[in-house]
Amino acid sequence: METALPSPRILLGPGPSSVNPRVLEALGRNPIGYLDPELFTLLDDLRADLRTLFGTANDFTIPLTGTGMAGMECCLVNLIEPGDNVVVGINGFFGMRMAEISRRLGANVTEVNAEWGQIIEPGQFYDAVKALPSVKLVGTVHAETSTGVRQPLEPIAEIAHDRSALFLVDAVTSLGGIPVNIDECDVDVCYSGTQKCVGAPPGLAPITVSEAAYQVAQSRKSPVPNWYYDWKLLRNYYDAPHTYHHTVPVNLLFALREALAEILEEGLEARYRRHRDVSHQLMTGLTELGIKPFANAEYRLPTLNSVYVPSNVEDEVAVRKRLLYEFGLEIGGGLGDLKGKVWRIGTMGASATRRNVALLLVALKHILA
Amino acid sequence: METALPSPRILLGPGPSSVNPRVLEALGRNPIGYLDPELFTLLDDLRADLRTLFGTANDFTIPLTGTGMAGMECCLVNLIEPGDNVVVGINGFFGMRMAEISRRLGANVTEVNAEWGQIIEPGQFYDAVKALPSVKLVGTVHAETSTGVRQPLEPIAEIAHDRSALFLVDAVTSLGGIPVNIDECDVDVCYSGTQKCVGAPPGLAPITVSEAAYQVAQSRKSPVPNWYYDWKLLRNYYDAPHTYHHTVPVNLLFALREALAEILEEGLEARYRRHRDVSHQLMTGLTELGIKPFANAEYRLPTLNSVYVPSNVEDEVAVRKRLLYEFGLEIGGGLGDLKGKVWRIGTMGASATRRNVALLLVALKHILA
Repeated sequence: METALPSPRILLGPGPSSVNPRVLEALGRNPIGYLDPELFTLLDDLRADLRTLFGTANDFTIPLTGTGMAGMECCLVNLIEPGDNVVVGINGFFGMRMAEISRRLGANVTEVNAEWGQIIEPGQFYDAVKALPSVKLVGTVHAETSTGVRQPLEPIAEIAHDRSALFLVDAVTSLGGIPVNIDECDVDVCYSGTQKCVGAPPGLAPITVSEAAYQVAQSRKSPVPNWYYDWKLLRNYYDAPHTYHHTVPVNLLFALREALAEILEEGLEARYRRHRDVSHQLMTGLTELGIKPFANAEYRLPTLNSVYVPSNVEDEVAVRKRLLYEFGLEIGGGLGDLKGKVWRIGTMGASATRRNVALLLVALKHILA
Repeated sequence: METALPSPRILLGPGPSSVNPRVLEALGRNPIGYLDPELFTLLDDLRADLRTLFGTANDFTIPLTGTGMAGMECCLVNLIEPGDNVVVGINGFFGMRMAEISRRLGANVTEVNAEWGQIIEPGQFYDAVKALPSVKLVGTVHAETSTGVRQPLEPIAEIAHDRSALFLVDAVTSLGGIPVNIDECDVDVCYSGTQKCVGAPPGLAPITVSEAAYQVAQSRKSPVPNWYYDWKLLRNYYDAPHTYHHTVPVNLLFALREALAEILEEGLEARYRRHRDVSHQLMTGLTELGIKPFANAEYRLPTLNSVYVPSNVEDEVAVRKRLLYEFGLEIGGGLGDLKGKVWRIGTMGASATRRNVALLLVALKHILA
């Protein structure tokens, strides 16, 4: 007897987002082997599409096996050696994680802190790198999933490169939803996830690495203390000679390939516009319900909409439960200090539709009445 | 326009194996969120079924995000601290990897070597642990995918435990195809993959960890240098309070749940018998074609059948290419020193059918004629 079907959710939380039928169909195709010539054709096409989406010419652009957090782990573990000075911007939950992983790897971490919901001012990064004798890496989160804030990247890139440091960016909640112009912004290393704005299921982390960053990892004094995510071993598999490393999750690759095809058919500009329009519709509707935005309008993400829980709501968890059970709608609660204080509503990828937002607004109005 | 369909392969290589339609159907279901109550019900059921398959009562038994090699990385990185003495059995490619990862993590590795294709004698482990002042961990591969050899586990468990060392086992090519009796064999830590004998797509690594082993990891002096695979963080997600760690690949979990349901419906004994019967059919047929087994009969795996490339075959790669392109059949070549010398034919999970083997034998006969 087959296992029970999951309830048909509409995913408007912080991810995963809903996935379109054509991508789910591709996911369920018959697997092929990890050395099948057809797989390498698929991977080449997929990697080319990822470069387009990232806005980069970086050869070493791959769909890493693992979720967005695996992307963070992978990029940090290849670059950081014990004793390295690393500067990390923290204005939310994921900046904190970047700092924590860096510390676990033995880095001396300088935190550049801003209030959650605000951006980090470039001057703060400037002061931090100036105070250090040398800097290996400056890292920041492009789109903070915990707050819904978009961090401007260009000024930080300049500050990092002036000190010959690499610039690392977390684009988990931006890639596919807002422009991520890796080459234009002079980003050295960037990772993302497939389950938010890219429109594929969770399980892969697109990463892109400049040659400069790749070479920094190759000139380490100590071996990368992580065999599974060692860039060199990975690259020898994804590029010729395609040396066996691990059994790549071929079905997730089928799905990602399909999702990327869908993105390029929609067109990047049209896709970004859809995310903006749907987010605008949502925020307008929420304002009409008396629900106030959390993030500053100037830096508000159209992909992850954070709002204050209305003051007259006593049990915000109960509201989310009713949305889930009565309407099949998932939205997210707050992380860390924002727990119980904000809701996080994702309008990402296939979830970013006028229909979904209309339903959510009606449901919220009904429940909050 | 949708992307091209992959060619319909029959996967008789070292994995991934073919996947049954009901599992592929489950894979393509609509995703749900990583905190959805339905997901935790699914995970509880899935973990219970994994315990049955592993033959263990270990509470900490989870489907790790990542492939089998991620399972190896995860188990080693939680247990090993720099300077630890680790004993690793090496009679094939995957034992070598276990040693390499251990060294990257700073362990003093004592290798216990045997010729590829042979088992490692328990006495060799005994001598190795006796020569060390203390031993943290003894590791070995249950089913060497590179050679097709089954390593007996019980004597090694006893030798490890006599020295208060933990016993770690790689069951990537055995779980679901031959018995893996974790508790009966006194194994402390074991990892596997889903894409071989378990009948699911690649992307998850079932792992099981005894409380003793878990506590060893919790009493480390240094933090685990891998945030993504830190057992404590993982356990806090899979168990209550279900604290967010990473976005689990929900579609792969749907598929694994379905594959495990299928396994328990077939029955473990019936499933192991099917693997034995199909392997017997294959080896009998190959012998009739003059193709000789590589591994010693006594320790030959029924899941991964290694055979010598016939001496009259000049270009073994060409034979495998013809199998793939003319018959849609994938078999594997040799790894490491066995490259060009052996073929590795997987009869695992849904691939282990009389029909597949009959077709392979006919195709080989045709090509080798």
